[in-house]
Amino acid sequence: MSTIPKAADPNLLKIWEASEKNRSLFEEQVRKMALPVQAVFLDNKKIVAAGFEPAADKLALSPDAAEVRKSFPKLYPVTKDEVLQATAGNRPQTKGCRVAVLFSGGPAAGGHNVIVGLKKALGTDNTLLGVRQGPKGLLAGNLFEIADEDLQQVVNTGGFDFLGSDRTKIKGHEQFKQVKAVCHDNRLDAIVVIGGDDSNTNAAMLAEYLYENVHADGRGVQVVGVPKTIDGDLQVGEFLPISFGFDTATKIYSELVGNILQDTPSSRKYWHFIKLMGRSATHVALEVALQTKPAVAFVSEEIEEKNLSLAQSVDIACRAIARRAGKGINHGVILIPEGLIEFIPEMKALIQELNEVMAKFDKVLNGMNTMAEKKDFIYGKISAPSAKLMASLPDEFENMLLLDRDSHGNLQVSQIPTEKLLIEMVRSRLREMKADPTPFVGQAADQVDLTPEEVERFVKSKFATNHHFFGYEGRCGAPTRFDAAYTFNLGLTAGSLLLAGKTGYMVAVNALDQQGAALAIPLTGLICIERRQGKDEMVIEKALVKSDSPAFKYFLSVRERWSNSDCFSSPGPRQLWGPTAKQLPIIVALNQGYANLEFSLGEEIDIF
Amino acid sequence: MSTIPKAADPNLLKIWEASEKNRSLFEEQVRKMALPVQAVFLDNKKIVAAGFEPAADKLALSPDAAEVRKSFPKLYPVTKDEVLQATAGNRPQTKGCRVAVLFSGGPAAGGHNVIVGLKKALGTDNTLLGVRQGPKGLLAGNLFEIADEDLQQVVNTGGFDFLGSDRTKIKGHEQFKQVKAVCHDNRLDAIVVIGGDDSNTNAAMLAEYLYENVHADGRGVQVVGVPKTIDGDLQVGEFLPISFGFDTATKIYSELVGNILQDTPSSRKYWHFIKLMGRSATHVALEVALQTKPAVAFVSEEIEEKNLSLAQSVDIACRAIARRAGKGINHGVILIPEGLIEFIPEMKALIQELNEVMAKFDKVLNGMNTMAEKKDFIYGKISAPSAKLMASLPDEFENMLLLDRDSHGNLQVSQIPTEKLLIEMVRSRLREMKADPTPFVGQAADQVDLTPEEVERFVKSKFATNHHFFGYEGRCGAPTRFDAAYTFNLGLTAGSLLLAGKTGYMVAVNALDQQGAALAIPLTGLICIERRQGKDEMVIEKALVKSDSPAFKYFLSVRERWSNSDCFSSPGPRQLWGPTAKQLPIIVALNQGYANLEFSLGEEIDIF
Repeated sequence: MSTIPKAADPNLLKIWEASEKNRSLFEEQVRKMALPVQAVFLDNKKIVAAGFEPAADKLALSPDAAEVRKSFPKLYPVTKDEVLQATAGNRPQTKGCRVAVLFSGGPAAGGHNVIVGLKKALGTDNTLLGVRQGPKGLLAGNLFEIADEDLQQVVNTGGFDFLGSDRTKIKGHEQFKQVKAVCHDNRLDAIVVIGGDDSNTNAAMLAEYLYENVHADGRGVQVVGVPKTIDGDLQVGEFLPISFGFDTATKIYSELVGNILQDTPSSRKYWHFIKLMGRSATHVALEVALQTKPAVAFVSEEIEEKNLSLAQSVDIACRAIARRAGKGINHGVILIPEGLIEFIPEMKALIQELNEVMAKFDKVLNGMNTMAEKKDFIYGKISAPSAKLMASLPDEFENMLLLDRDSHGNLQVSQIPTEKLLIEMVRSRLREMKADPTPFVGQAADQVDLTPEEVERFVKSKFATNHHFFGYEGRCGAPTRFDAAYTFNLGLTAGSLLLAGKTGYMVAVNALDQQGAALAIPLTGLICIERRQGKDEMVIEKALVKSDSPAFKYFLSVRERWSNSDCFSSPGPRQLWGPTAKQLPIIVALNQGYANLEFSLGEEIDIF
Repeated sequence: MSTIPKAADPNLLKIWEASEKNRSLFEEQVRKMALPVQAVFLDNKKIVAAGFEPAADKLALSPDAAEVRKSFPKLYPVTKDEVLQATAGNRPQTKGCRVAVLFSGGPAAGGHNVIVGLKKALGTDNTLLGVRQGPKGLLAGNLFEIADEDLQQVVNTGGFDFLGSDRTKIKGHEQFKQVKAVCHDNRLDAIVVIGGDDSNTNAAMLAEYLYENVHADGRGVQVVGVPKTIDGDLQVGEFLPISFGFDTATKIYSELVGNILQDTPSSRKYWHFIKLMGRSATHVALEVALQTKPAVAFVSEEIEEKNLSLAQSVDIACRAIARRAGKGINHGVILIPEGLIEFIPEMKALIQELNEVMAKFDKVLNGMNTMAEKKDFIYGKISAPSAKLMASLPDEFENMLLLDRDSHGNLQVSQIPTEKLLIEMVRSRLREMKADPTPFVGQAADQVDLTPEEVERFVKSKFATNHHFFGYEGRCGAPTRFDAAYTFNLGLTAGSLLLAGKTGYMVAVNALDQQGAALAIPLTGLICIERRQGKDEMVIEKALVKSDSPAFKYFLSVRERWSNSDCFSSPGPRQLWGPTAKQLPIIVALNQGYANLEFSLGEEIDIF
């Protein structure tokens, strides 16, 4: 045992200096990890491009198919409703193909591996160009040739930093023309767009626009999409079980929620209200709920379907809190999907009315000096139910609804701290329940079934809270084994598809528990017509949590038990090694009817 | 490829039902993990209690030793300054010993394994009792006998939920008397307190009080402390490299900060201001900074030592932001230790003055109706520098300083969102710098060395922010391999120490890179006299970040580089399996002079 040194050990300093710039001990090890490769992409343990043939099942087209068809006169007759499946037969022999790849929108774990897979499928006979800074970079022609050495640095790492990304939307004639010029200047044969529902919709339109006559010889430029979003709202039934990035994000959030759940019976004094990323659908919060089993988890789609009011939603939480307090459990976790407020029908109506009033009376309101004056004016312009609802909100939140609008005149709902709003409203509702508990005690659905002793315990109980919002933490983490494997195979599929001469498809991999099947889904077949801000728009419908899905039905069957006493479990930090490393998201395994959680996507191959 | 099923697979449902109540796939696997055991605790691969002998080095006593000695007339002459070291010689043969164990204060990862180690050292010839709900439960005599089967459920899991904990302080004659009665009633021979600096101070006093005459035959009750705190501010030079829980908490925070860093060059638009738990010392933020290499990391102790003002601290951030903006990097991460505000000398003075004024004029202030009236009054009562500082704060924060005090009349500083305060002040300072950048450009230490082109780029740059606070997420996570191993060996040491008849020690393990050495540090030797709220109090001094420590010196040598361009790395989620699972905290390895990061604490043994 020596005394404390005055200086660090030189060897350790050397180790640490070397860990700068994405060279942590962890990152150095994950770069070395082998990745599973589906058999169709292997020839004698060497990665090769696959061919394609029609899959057994066809896509169920949207009811708007006839209408959508008109907008895709060139693409539609070719791709139709036919899903393609990769095959080891008729492998493409294409050479000299120049492909550009870009990220579009927010980052998601695994993006880098899509590019690695793409490059491997293209092989040495074709060229892969990276587009810097997303759609904006594509419009500006900001491209560079990607070398294998670049990819050795980013394989299996998180983030989109290798290329960067942005949220510019490529839609409309002017932008398409710009892209065409960039394709021409860079002699591109194909573009791969890694993005969410909107980016894939725009990819379809771009595929149509670039279908022919881009180059002097009449050739067009192929466009293929890769399904990315941590929200998990890009799913296509059996064909696309999930978008990439969802698994990593939800495993990160699940660890944190699990840690906090573990804290609750340790400290025995807090209710934690936790908001989770995911505005348009509740897949994230549902996955995290199934992983961690908290006291309450709101599912936005259910609230909307049942047309629950804000007060009724608050009561759901209050009943759980009262029931547990009756048993002496004054702690718990409540999960709140980011989009909750917009799914509560009366809140949605109120926000819409406010957006309209504030746009219409913009100048009048700007001329007013005080918030009170503005409020008076606005209350006079909205419907009675909306006015009543707005008045029921805590002052702070009432004011927030009157904040500045975004460039489309919409309230920036993501700015509203729903988790704090719920805390305030739950607190005041609990005060009412404690002041006179009799109306709340009974057997009816909206009541709390407590014994007199339990009521007494509830009335005396304390309600202390904490709130959290987990969002950015989940977008750029190192990919899980699943996301790393899945994206690599998506990349292989995209590359193969391009070499096979296909355009207008989104790639997918299903049969995730059975060695995987690489697919290409015709983008036009996914497009519906939706009314957005008073205009018909072509969109890929966001996949919502369905009330008849196996995952939601399972949640329904157990949530009462989870609410009544501590049933939580801690899924722990995601593991890259060891016995638990290969777990699929539970909602995917439930909804796809898999018998267990372990993914299987083929033989593990050293990539570099 | 089949169509989507209407129902989940029954086998999967069975797997998932079984995962409730801390039985996730991960938790089931970590329960099975072997733990390293130091050789002194092994006899033919069987775990046995060790004996003790004086260690080579003695404890450097505090300058207050002579004064402290008076308060420990029985204990001090026995334990003195002698550190004990475990040995395979003279193993204790004690039988029939009844030991109670409790958690005190906030949870930290590894607590459960301390109990497992304790039970294993006590063996089948002695009895271990658990105290429910911490010090409060000890006063109430809320004890139960712990069985091996209980421990099979909690080994290697996070949280303190097996026993619960609370923040009651056991100090003062009345409470000691109560504990004595509980010892008598339960025929206790010893108590193990798992807690932080305050809990260990109180353990020393309790050891003195219970030294003799607890039982009818004149026997006393032994008391031993175990060093717990995620803040890492319980360290004793070479003898106690770190408290348990620190490694897990900082690895959790490091992953999150690393994820967010990875996000910054992906989205290229945000500065993230991240506050990290740790009020009294900056070990947590320093460890996370060394792991992730952000643009800026504040070290409270440095700010205090250099007597920097709030404005100067804000300028540190602004200079980094300006310098990076000059290079076109409009993103980054700024780490803020929770305690920063209290370490800025002028802020500390202001808060102290406010505490005094608000206590003194309590009634006058309560009689006032408006905040404006109160403010006017208070501004008249505080010193000119404090008044100037307070006026420089954004309104929202000025008001926060006048919030309700805690039961001791102190501002609850942890309620102040320092990360948001800094964002506001940085934003307004950047506005000034952009409006007239000339005074900020130059070579002096407080200036920003930019070329004219860089200045122009900075002036045009945007400053968009996000803020985060990571706290509760890190207390109850599953322990890292190090925390699991370390706590198990701390438990073995505590159990052995009790069987060897020792009292008034805190256990420790050092030589963490060299098979470990189990130690016992005399508690009285750690105690100093500190003036708290106008009274002399005996305390174990909190270990702060020292400006001459190897870890801080290393940070100093690299932070300019990290600030000037992206050098970050992502340590990833903590791994329980695989090549990176055994990393020590980097500050521990640096400060202890270890040559590498891997811990080694003996042979791996299956515990159950």
